[in-house]
This record gives sequence, structure tokens and C-alpha cells, in this order.
Amino acid sequence: MEYDITVQPGGTRFTCPSDEDLLTALHGAGINVESVCGGMGTCGKCRVRILEGKVTDPTLEEEDHLSEEQLDGGERLACQVFPESDLVIELPDSSLATGERLQLACELEVGGFDPAVRFHDLEVEIPASPGDHGSDLLRLRDALGSSHPGVRLEGADLEGLRTLPTLLREEGGNVRAVTRAGKLLGLLPRARNPLGLAVDLGSTKVALFLCDLAEGRVLASHGFLNPQIRHGEDIVTRIQYAMDRDAARLGQLVVEAINDNLDVISADAGLGREDIFEMVLVGNTAMHHLFLALPVTQLAMSPYLPATDLPLEVKARDLGLQLNPAAVVYLPPPIAGYVGSDHLAAVAAARLWERPEPCLLLDIGTNTEVALHAGGRMRTCSCASGPAFEGGGLSQGMRAGDGAIARVSVDPAAGGLRLSVIGDATAKGICGSGILSALAAMVETGAVDTSGRMREDGPGVERRGEELLFYLAPPDSGNPEGVAITQNDVREIQKAKGAIRAGVDALLAEAGIGHGDLKEVVLAGAFGTFIDPADALAIALLPPVPTGLVNQVGNAAGAGARGMLFSAGARAEAEEVARRLEYLELSAYPGLSKLFAAGMYLSQETVRGAKGRFGLQAPPASGPD
Amino acid sequence: MEYDITVQPGGTRFTCPSDEDLLTALHGAGINVESVCGGMGTCGKCRVRILEGKVTDPTLEEEDHLSEEQLDGGERLACQVFPESDLVIELPDSSLATGERLQLACELEVGGFDPAVRFHDLEVEIPASPGDHGSDLLRLRDALGSSHPGVRLEGADLEGLRTLPTLLREEGGNVRAVTRAGKLLGLLPRARNPLGLAVDLGSTKVALFLCDLAEGRVLASHGFLNPQIRHGEDIVTRIQYAMDRDAARLGQLVVEAINDNLDVISADAGLGREDIFEMVLVGNTAMHHLFLALPVTQLAMSPYLPATDLPLEVKARDLGLQLNPAAVVYLPPPIAGYVGSDHLAAVAAARLWERPEPCLLLDIGTNTEVALHAGGRMRTCSCASGPAFEGGGLSQGMRAGDGAIARVSVDPAAGGLRLSVIGDATAKGICGSGILSALAAMVETGAVDTSGRMREDGPGVERRGEELLFYLAPPDSGNPEGVAITQNDVREIQKAKGAIRAGVDALLAEAGIGHGDLKEVVLAGAFGTFIDPADALAIALLPPVPTGLVNQVGNAAGAGARGMLFSAGARAEAEEVARRLEYLELSAYPGLSKLFAAGMYLSQETVRGAKGRFGLQAPPASGPD
Repeated sequence: MEYDITVQPGGTRFTCPSDEDLLTALHGAGINVESVCGGMGTCGKCRVRILEGKVTDPTLEEEDHLSEEQLDGGERLACQVFPESDLVIELPDSSLATGERLQLACELEVGGFDPAVRFHDLEVEIPASPGDHGSDLLRLRDALGSSHPGVRLEGADLEGLRTLPTLLREEGGNVRAVTRAGKLLGLLPRARNPLGLAVDLGSTKVALFLCDLAEGRVLASHGFLNPQIRHGEDIVTRIQYAMDRDAARLGQLVVEAINDNLDVISADAGLGREDIFEMVLVGNTAMHHLFLALPVTQLAMSPYLPATDLPLEVKARDLGLQLNPAAVVYLPPPIAGYVGSDHLAAVAAARLWERPEPCLLLDIGTNTEVALHAGGRMRTCSCASGPAFEGGGLSQGMRAGDGAIARVSVDPAAGGLRLSVIGDATAKGICGSGILSALAAMVETGAVDTSGRMREDGPGVERRGEELLFYLAPPDSGNPEGVAITQNDVREIQKAKGAIRAGVDALLAEAGIGHGDLKEVVLAGAFGTFIDPADALAIALLPPVPTGLVNQVGNAAGAGARGMLFSAGARAEAEEVARRLEYLELSAYPGLSKLFAAGMYLSQETVRGAKGRFGLQAPPASGPD
Repeated sequence: MEYDITVQPGGTRFTCPSDEDLLTALHGAGINVESVCGGMGTCGKCRVRILEGKVTDPTLEEEDHLSEEQLDGGERLACQVFPESDLVIELPDSSLATGERLQLACELEVGGFDPAVRFHDLEVEIPASPGDHGSDLLRLRDALGSSHPGVRLEGADLEGLRTLPTLLREEGGNVRAVTRAGKLLGLLPRARNPLGLAVDLGSTKVALFLCDLAEGRVLASHGFLNPQIRHGEDIVTRIQYAMDRDAARLGQLVVEAINDNLDVISADAGLGREDIFEMVLVGNTAMHHLFLALPVTQLAMSPYLPATDLPLEVKARDLGLQLNPAAVVYLPPPIAGYVGSDHLAAVAAARLWERPEPCLLLDIGTNTEVALHAGGRMRTCSCASGPAFEGGGLSQGMRAGDGAIARVSVDPAAGGLRLSVIGDATAKGICGSGILSALAAMVETGAVDTSGRMREDGPGVERRGEELLFYLAPPDSGNPEGVAITQNDVREIQKAKGAIRAGVDALLAEAGIGHGDLKEVVLAGAFGTFIDPADALAIALLPPVPTGLVNQVGNAAGAGARGMLFSAGARAEAEEVARRLEYLELSAYPGLSKLFAAGMYLSQETVRGAKGRFGLQAPPASGPD
């Protein structure tokens, strides 16, 4: 049985079978309703209001998330509802996954220019007399060898070969041969340059960089939301989806989205996707595996083993990517189950091993990867910081889109707090950077103590039933709910930042150095770009270093991917770094739970105090601590 | 408009649109009606009789091939007929492409055993404690390196990688790793051996050899008709089809047929096609190009240039072959537009360069490839011998299937001639080997003179209207038409054998040697196996050598393909031979037309005499001539 569903306002219509939940049907119809838990009923994000028609009864999960009043008013969780008649529904703004600000830029310079994809302008003779009998490929090889001594062509990709005879004759033998690793990939007219695509495949965001491989420059950058989000906002949910439902679907979604978004970029740039001969993709290990349709079961269970942590070259056509039919995808090696090639790319782009050591590099997200260069060694670990910094698990958390509070500062002159809201819109929620500075502000004003307990008598703290609230934006005509932080939100943030701090402290302890030794703390990635380092230092997410030592570099993973696209040398260097990086598995680290407990405190002093009480004294620092 | 077509006898039914000719519809319905010209109305093979219904009027092509009486009786050429109502038709036996005797065996021994696909039995640890973090591939690589020092694994095929984590755990880490060129292709349970497939892709026949790559033996051989035949019996017609109609279809037909026939073999052998990790395919250059969907336009026009004459490795999955998903297809290099990798494989299997020189090797077919090893050099050429030896262009020619006269000998005791008919059936036509010995018999009895003219007063010669006929099998109850050879048939055979003899003589002249110098003449291929060398010597198809020097080796191309499947060394050797082989383009050879004219004579003496008259004296022979 199929029912017609009409969405108000707007009147969009789609159908939903009686055995399909409304969330799946909404996603199937291309309506990007938020879902953090992937349809398990636990995140409470996918709210809809049933205006007309009959649906299944509320589930226990819905009763957990919705008050009786809300349920009586027709509010439901889309993932829990099955239609029993045609429906008219309403989607609240908060349920729609919004466009998100993406961080594409990076201040790190790309290094050398020696792309794996090369091109050579040739004049290939096209013989007409019966005595000549060399094949097209052989004559092209000879033309290449004589005009470019030392360049040796050993063969051709089948797809390149398929276009060779026709293009050679169309261009009268005056062609641009595109080669890679001694193989002909294809021919171009002389006026067209070979292109490349660098991809930073994040769990939430995907960044594409279309590059000119002849001139070594970025032609266009473009970011979009990872479409896998409809099957779960975090990695664990997606792995679960791949294991339980469809092992290949999540990879296909990304491939299709890259194909679709390439249409946009290449049209904008006036370039053809068939001129893209190479793609470099970086991402966390789960993204890497799902993209390649590699099994993820063993990645989901301790000891979280990747199928491979070697670099990989794959034909784009084997993945369904619509680039040049002969194009190759290069995937730098993952480091471990929870430290991916995106982190490797960030380390490589930052040239961590060349920075004055000891130097820390962090890429903060649902999983926060930390690398430490100290004593000539590079160590890395992954901290399970959770979705809080992406807005997940918070009562009014949201991703960094329009209407998100992105920064909070204490401003007694303005009557308390000053808010920065993305898009200059009415505040409708709070994103990761906002929650960090809100917490810093609450500690500063005394609304929260350094153990994370809200003070009922603290400034701005109110009680609503059992719950203490801290209003950032009071209810008003623009947003009748207002935006508030709850005690539970504070705890979630504490857990997230505690996990990161524990990882940082574990790496420092492994290297036998103290905070005071640190010469630099590099913050990579979108979140690291948007936060105020002073906030992160104030609530002791970062170890105590002077603010001036914190360096926000932007999307280093994307820069690393571009660097590897532009340079085979950078690629070899990154592979060497991958071999050098020593992975520390935090779940097996003896003092982790104590480091975590200490890391939850909300000031440098109280973190230090707790570590002292737990017997986790840092070794004497050579610099000021 | 679609019409129903019913075939009598049998009652098979199919539909045919009003704008589709009956031959195309018959082929589409899987009914293998003969067609040499590929539907151009020139070969006259695809006869049908219209029993009921209305069709388009006879074309000029049909009037050329069918008498008024035949047309009145409803006989038509299927390729020229479009239906105008539902039809009932009859297919004469002679129109059905019959199963054909295939030559799979070869007396040449396969050389070394060092397959490119290797296997290693390993014990790979599957760690469970949180501290272990090496990827599956890395641990497999380490297990391989420690148990097989010197074997280095550098990566994995994506498809192999996709199966690695699951298979590794299913087998508890005790696996057989299948590798090729330093890459993991996949895992097998220890009890299963990696398999390989050697394919000899002929224009008419395809031979498959399923081989065990662990034990170095052939498990099963299987031959079938090349399904491209429905789009034309000869290469030129098929190239035309690829150029005019569908560039990829002919390759797909072969791929589908290999897939289908593999079902049969692997079921017979109790083996799974997913265990086939490598395939080696040899074929003439047109077959090679069509199989790979490479352009053939340039191959169809002078100077007949291949797209490539380098060896090629292609993923089986890129071609749609259903082997192991990671399987590789190796294609040895073509030599020139009309000398293919099948000839290279035959030269390699025969180890021509090790035979006492001067030595000739011939593979007789529609194109006859000749190689000559003399003076330390190897030369090769291709002779346009045409379809006569496959039965094409002859009034009662047919392929070597049941009912074909395969051998004719003079036997005065038996009242004139003795016939060998394939399948001990009633003679219904004559195949290549039969036509050769029939002609030798006719020369011997004086029915034909050595210039190829039938003698009206010769024994067994009869006149039918304007035409002279020589009955091999007189009309009788079993075959009311009988089987006869016409003057025109004799001319066709003369042209075919003249072309071969001209090529042989051109190669000998290039090498500066005479017939008497030859130490051996190797006949490879099906035709070379089935003919009586005495016939070929009698009518001067071969140069005059003692019968004992002619060596029939069987399907040398197939043996060469198997040899390259079993040995990477043999592959390298063949590639070296390909570089050494000097190609002589006969169409550019100055004396060709005279050599051809001389080569048409039907005795060694008259050929020699004609060459003398044309000023084409062979150099003085060091041996007897």
C-alpha cells in the first residue's frame, strides 16, 4: 500500500509505502531532514507535525523525546512513524538539514609541483603508404621518446587506447599526450590542460578542489554536505547501516554526489569533467572504507582494524566516478581505524616534522585526531570526542549553518553577553564554536563552576522544572523557544573536551614532555578555524600554552590532498610520514580514564589539580607550565 | 508494426518488426542462419523459403543468386526480405550454421611453469587486543614476507581487498593468498587452486582452455563458434559492422559467449569461475581490437594500422568477463594489422627460432600468416587467402561440420574417387580440406589442367548449361542435388592457394633462399591439421619440399596461449619474439602480382615455369630444388 504525502508549506508531494518510515521516504524524496542517529529514534532531530491523516501510534522513543502536549499537537519523530492513510505534514525549520558554512581555505602553502599526471605536446606521424605498419601507440611512443628524451611510455590504459586512433587523426597528429606512471591515459587537443580533483571527504562535509595540472593552480573550490548524513550523522551509525542494510550504498551516495557537484563546478569553470585524469581523496578511515565499499565490520569492533593501511590506486571507473574514463584515484594510506588519511594529509600539509618541536596538531571533530612531533618522533592518536562539537546530543545544538550561534562573549557594557549568529539571522540554535565560547563565558561569569555544575544562583541561570537552563537568547517574537544551554549540554561538552585533553596529555606523557615544552599548537579543520583559541585555552580543552602559540591553519586536510595532487614527491613524502607516525591506541592506554576525568574540569588550574590528585603529574617542564 | 514469424519444421516463433530484415530477426531470436557477407546480399547463404504470408519484393541481389523458378517457389535471401504480414517460413539445412569440428589439441609441448599468478599458503594472525592496530593487508604482507622471504607484496587489487577482511576471518587466518605482480588479487581456502583461462579467439572458432595454475595442467578444453559470425563471416564484414552499426557489440558477443561457455566448462569440471584469476587471449588483430572495443576504422584502410602492437593487461571486469572480480586479462602483442597475436603464439609455441633453419610456419585460414626463420632472422607476412578454405565463395562450400566432404582420393579400384565425409553423413557440401584434395584428385585424373581449366572431355566432367561441373557425389536419394565442383570453384581455390604461395615465395626471396634450402615446413591451425600435406604439395600450395619435411602440429596458437598462461617467462619470450619478427607488407611488395599469377598454377613444375617466364627465378638453391 502506498500513500500520498504532502508537505506544508510548499506542497511538495511524494509517496510512502505503508511499511516504510516517514524519514526514509522523506530522504528518498530528496528532502534533507536532519537525523543524527540514522533513524533509530534516539536523537530526536527528525521532528514532523502530522496535520492530516492517520499514522501509527507513538513509540517509546517518541515518548522520550516529545511531551504529551507535543504528541497531542501532532508532533512526531519521522523515523518512528508509518503512514496509515494519505498525509499532510509540516516540517519545522529545525528539522531541515541546512546548508552549512564550510571551511575550504587553508593558509598552508602547497609545496612542489611535479604531478603524477604529466602531459607532452607531440607531433605524431600518421602514415599513409602501405609499407608503414607501426601501431598508433608505438608511433606515439616513438614521438614521445624522441621529443622528450628520458620519457618512456610503457603502455596505455585501455580507455586511453580506445580514443587514441580517432583523436590522433582528428588532430592531424598534433596532440597533447596525457601520461601517468609510464602509461598513456589519453589525448587532449593542445589547447586543453589536464585537470585533477582533490577531495576531502569528511563525515559531515565534502570539499572538492578542481585543479589545473598543467599550471598548478586551483580552478574552483566547492563544498557540500556528505549525503550519507541521511543514514546517520556519525560514523558508528553509518557503519551500522552498511553492516545491517547495504554495504555499498554509502559509497555510492558519495560517488553520486561528487559526480553531481562536479557538474556544477565544471560548468562554472567552463571545463569538462572528461579532462580530469586524476583524483586524490583523503578522509577518515571509515569514510575511506565506505567510499571504496571495503568491509567495515572489523573496523567497528575492537581492535578497530582497517582492511588496508597502504596507499591505494583505483580506476575512477571502478568506483562509478564520471571523470575521464582512464582517470586514476589515489588514496593516501589510513594510519589506523580511527586516524585517517585526512589527518595524514593535514600533518603533511602542515609539514609537522619541520616545525619547531615539540609541536601539537589537532583536527577537532566527532573524532579528534592529535599528532605530536617531539624528540624526532611523530605520534598520533584519536580521541572519541563525540558529536557535541557538531551540535549533536545538545538540546539546541545544530551544525554551523544560518541561525547558529557561533560565538559568545562576555560584554558587561552590552548587558551581559554578546552573540555572533551565522547569517545574521535570528538565533535558532548553537553550533560547536558557539558552545565552546558559551561555556567559557559561563565559567567566566560564574554561571557554571569549574567542575561543570550550573549554579542555580549564577547570573542568567534559570530553573525550568527539574532542569537548570542558561539562556543565550531569551524567547522572543523571532524565536518563541529562545536558545538555552542546559546542565546536560554542559556535561556533553565536558565529555567532548575531556576526551581531547586526555588524548593530548597521553601523547605528551608518552613523549615524556610537559605542556610548557610546547613550541606550537596547530589547529586544523573547520572547527579549529572557527573557534576562539582563548576559549579553548580558558576551559582547558587545550593544554596551557600562551595564546600566541596557537596557530589556526584552516582546512589542512584539503591542502594536503591538493599538495599530493600537485606533487608525486609530496605523495611519497606523505607515505613516508605514514610509516613514521606511531599510533597510540587510547582505549588501551593505562591512565586514560583518569586523564579523561581530569580533562573534564573547566580551567587549567583545576585540570592540573585533578591530575595531581590522580597521581598523573606531568614530568617537570623545561619551560613555564 | 511487428509480425509473428513461425519457422517450419519445429514451429519456433519469434517476432520481426516491419523495418527489420528477416536475417537480423532470425539472429536476434538465436537462430544461427549462415551469413558470409553479413547481410549485404552478396554471399547467397541465408536462404529461406516463405511458406505463408506477404513479404517485400525480390531485390536485384536476390535475382543474382536465385533462379526465377526458385523465387517463384518462395525461396528468398533472409537478409533482403522484410515482412509485410505474419509469416511461416522454412529454413533449408544448408542455411543453418552447423556445429563445426574444432581443433583444440596440439602436439607442441608447453614449456616452463612459472605462472604470473602465484599463491602462498599463510597463517595470518587476527589480533583481538586493543593494542594491535595493523591493517589486515599489512598483517598478510608481513605473514607473506616472513614465510616466503623474497616475496614482496606491494598492494592489493580493490576487489581483492574487498574480500580480504571477511575471508581472512572466515578461514581463521589460514588462507591461500593469490598474488600477481606484487599485488594481492584475493584469498582462497587452502583446498582450492587458482585457475587460469587460455583463449584462442579465431574469426570462426573460439577455443577455451581451463587450467590449474597451481599444478600446471589443463583441466578442460572447450570449443565453440564465434558468435560474431551472425554479423559477417569474414573480418572485413565485421569491421564494417563495427564501423557502421555498433562499435562495441562484437566484443560484447564474444565476452558473453565466453561467460556462457565457462558455465558449461566449470560445471563439468566442478570448479568455480570465481577461482579464475588470469586469462590469456590470443587472436588475429581484428579479433583483438573488436574484443577490446578498440577502434577498427584505421585497421580497415591501408596501411592497416593497429591501435596498439604492445602487450596489454586489462582487468577482466573492465570487459564484462565474469571471472574472479580481480582477474587480469593478458593480451600478447599483435604484430601488424593482419598478423595477430595468435600467429605470435603459434610461433612461440613452435619455438620457431630454435628449429633448424630455414624453417617455414604457416597458419592457413581466411588470412594465412606465414613466418620464416632463416639466417638468424624471423620474417612474417599475411596472405589474403580469402574464405575459400572455410567454404566461402564456393557453390557448395561449407565449414567443416557434419556432411562436409573432408578428403577425396583417387581410387581406381573403387570406381574413381573415394570420399571422406565428416560425421559419416550424406555428403551435403565440401569443406576446405576436401576442396584441396578434390582439386589434387582432379589434376591427377586430368579433369583439370595445371592452369586450372576444366576439361570438358576430362573424366567425371559434365556440362550443365553454360557451366562445367565435376561431381564428387552424384545426385541421389540422400542428396538430390549432389555435391559438385564448378569451374568457378576451381578458380576460387586457385586464388586462395596462389595468395599463400605468393606470400611464401616473397618471404623466401626476401631471405634470399630457395625452396631446396628449407629444412622444415610447420603447418599450424585446424586447416593445416586436417589437410593431407601431399595434396598441398601436389597442387603447389606449398613449395616443393619432401613430404617428410611437412610437420602438422595442431592448434599451436592455443598451445602458445596456454604456455603464456603457465609461464611468465614464456610471456616475456613471446614479447621478445614480437620485437624480433620483421613484418613484410605484401601489398607493398614489388613482385607480388607476378608471384600470385605464378602461384595459381596447379603443379610445382608449372609454378616454377611461370616464375621463370615472369623473371622471378629463385636464387640457386644449395639443396635440391
